[in-house]
Amino acid sequence: MTTSANPTMLALEKCAKGGPSLASWNEGPAKQSILNFVVGVTTTGSPQFVKPEERVAVFDNDGTLWTEQPMYFQLAFVFDRLKVLAPQHPEWRDRPLFSAVLEGDMKTVAAGGLRGLLELATITHAGMTTDDFSKIVEEWITSARHPKFNRPYTELIFQPMLELLAYLRANGFKTFIVSGGGIEFMRVFADKVYGIPPEQVIGSTIVTKFEMLAGVPVLTRLPELNFMDDNVGKPVAINMHIGRRPIAAFGNSDGDLQMLQWTAAGTGSRFGLLVHHTDSEREYAYERSPLGNLDKALTEAQAKGWTVVDMKRDWNRIYPFETCK
Amino acid sequence: MTTSANPTMLALEKCAKGGPSLASWNEGPAKQSILNFVVGVTTTGSPQFVKPEERVAVFDNDGTLWTEQPMYFQLAFVFDRLKVLAPQHPEWRDRPLFSAVLEGDMKTVAAGGLRGLLELATITHAGMTTDDFSKIVEEWITSARHPKFNRPYTELIFQPMLELLAYLRANGFKTFIVSGGGIEFMRVFADKVYGIPPEQVIGSTIVTKFEMLAGVPVLTRLPELNFMDDNVGKPVAINMHIGRRPIAAFGNSDGDLQMLQWTAAGTGSRFGLLVHHTDSEREYAYERSPLGNLDKALTEAQAKGWTVVDMKRDWNRIYPFETCK
Repeated sequence: MTTSANPTMLALEKCAKGGPSLASWNEGPAKQSILNFVVGVTTTGSPQFVKPEERVAVFDNDGTLWTEQPMYFQLAFVFDRLKVLAPQHPEWRDRPLFSAVLEGDMKTVAAGGLRGLLELATITHAGMTTDDFSKIVEEWITSARHPKFNRPYTELIFQPMLELLAYLRANGFKTFIVSGGGIEFMRVFADKVYGIPPEQVIGSTIVTKFEMLAGVPVLTRLPELNFMDDNVGKPVAINMHIGRRPIAAFGNSDGDLQMLQWTAAGTGSRFGLLVHHTDSEREYAYERSPLGNLDKALTEAQAKGWTVVDMKRDWNRIYPFETCK
Repeated sequence: MTTSANPTMLALEKCAKGGPSLASWNEGPAKQSILNFVVGVTTTGSPQFVKPEERVAVFDNDGTLWTEQPMYFQLAFVFDRLKVLAPQHPEWRDRPLFSAVLEGDMKTVAAGGLRGLLELATITHAGMTTDDFSKIVEEWITSARHPKFNRPYTELIFQPMLELLAYLRANGFKTFIVSGGGIEFMRVFADKVYGIPPEQVIGSTIVTKFEMLAGVPVLTRLPELNFMDDNVGKPVAINMHIGRRPIAAFGNSDGDLQMLQWTAAGTGSRFGLLVHHTDSEREYAYERSPLGNLDKALTEAQAKGWTVVDMKRDWNRIYPFETCK
């Protein structure tokens, strides 16, 4: 992974001269709540002050750091991968779910539910070493294009969130991804596009097995789910990987609710934020939907005073490729 | 966790004025191999040069960073904990393994093997929240004493390894613990005694469950093993938690062999080291033994050119409480 053409940095440099700022955030309560929180925890002597090593911020990925419509980007990878592998697996034609994907019958795929998708995901993500898997993802992520924007998926990251990540890091925060997405899928690009190194990327995992192949030690990926990093899984994964309770959590759906609850329940200054997708023109508008369902978390945000970002109102720029305002 | 009385720093300051050095290492091939490796990977333009973000070093804990005799320290915690809990569990008297611990019959305990010990460990480590568990460990680790040295276990850390950790960090390395010990057990003291923060401590885990207790979100520890971070588990855990292949690995037993193999098999400059316990007077002398068995790894170290530390010969000081030479 090279950082020389780091889009995060390029995007930040383009619009925000003179250090990290929140230039793509309109003035308003959302931006103000972020500034208030950060000033509080970084001001020595303030009752809100938090020691730098305790400044842990966790970010969901799909719908929070990048777009998740018309489907989770990793799902597009699963479908593309299935098509690549299909010729070697004529038996897939007899499996309704598999043939539905191959024929583009998304209705049948959707009817298979989460369980069906997980089956497709584990099968397409397994049967190779971890090193080979990274290469496959790398190849896909640089060549695949988003159907609406006709751009690489890694360009569909949210400029305001890039600025927020940079602003938090400039204020001593350690930023982590805590996503339902595959940990080894995200690690391929997270450093390059978000400036978040592999050891700060937490996600769902499949079982891997250490073995010797012709005298060379490898980790082989098996078609078996190991850990689902969503809903109640997020606080569990945070505890396992970080071992500290975050002081700030950022999400966009009910899958992030427990992560926000866990973060908010600690002592001292705490910050919770939900991205509400309200811009059908520049991005997508949805909330109570099968994908990125935002329902209970929205209600709880209002009750608990978490910040809710109205994308249409609060962000003057959504993607790095848009012109600076 | 306070860092004001950080014994690592105190120990280092006491003997090594003027920045990190390897003062407790005698001149010889072991010390020289460390210096050669670090100079190589940090010299810009050198063929051995490694970018700072890739300078990942992994350390086993028991027998590598601190003593592991006459039994793993966490096992002493298990036994002590069992005795504390016994009055609430009269039914344990009818279970041979449990009553053996309560009666100090170590022969029967040993006959139960790893499986028996794991059962004892999961039972004594479960049934409370993660926060409560940390408090229990904190209390024990500050009050319990090692039977031979009559000192807190956290004083039985190896001064040369503290110096090595500090030396590597001063050279841009990120240092991780990768141990068979419990992740939440070690995190209580790892930052204070080794300067290794919770997010860089990797270990064995039991299952934890997110739930609401009287409206408060907690993580409850269940009496079920989740992951055993030993042998083939170590490379798997490294991949899961760090997502990068280390360039240096430090261990002392066959349980560390796969971690060393995995580290050594990467491209570019690599370093492997085994601590050989050869000092029956100042510490303990053992190798092919039930505890900290060093057999296959020692053979492979010789074949692969990994560094083997002869404690008696290579370390002029073992513990921080010893007088500086």
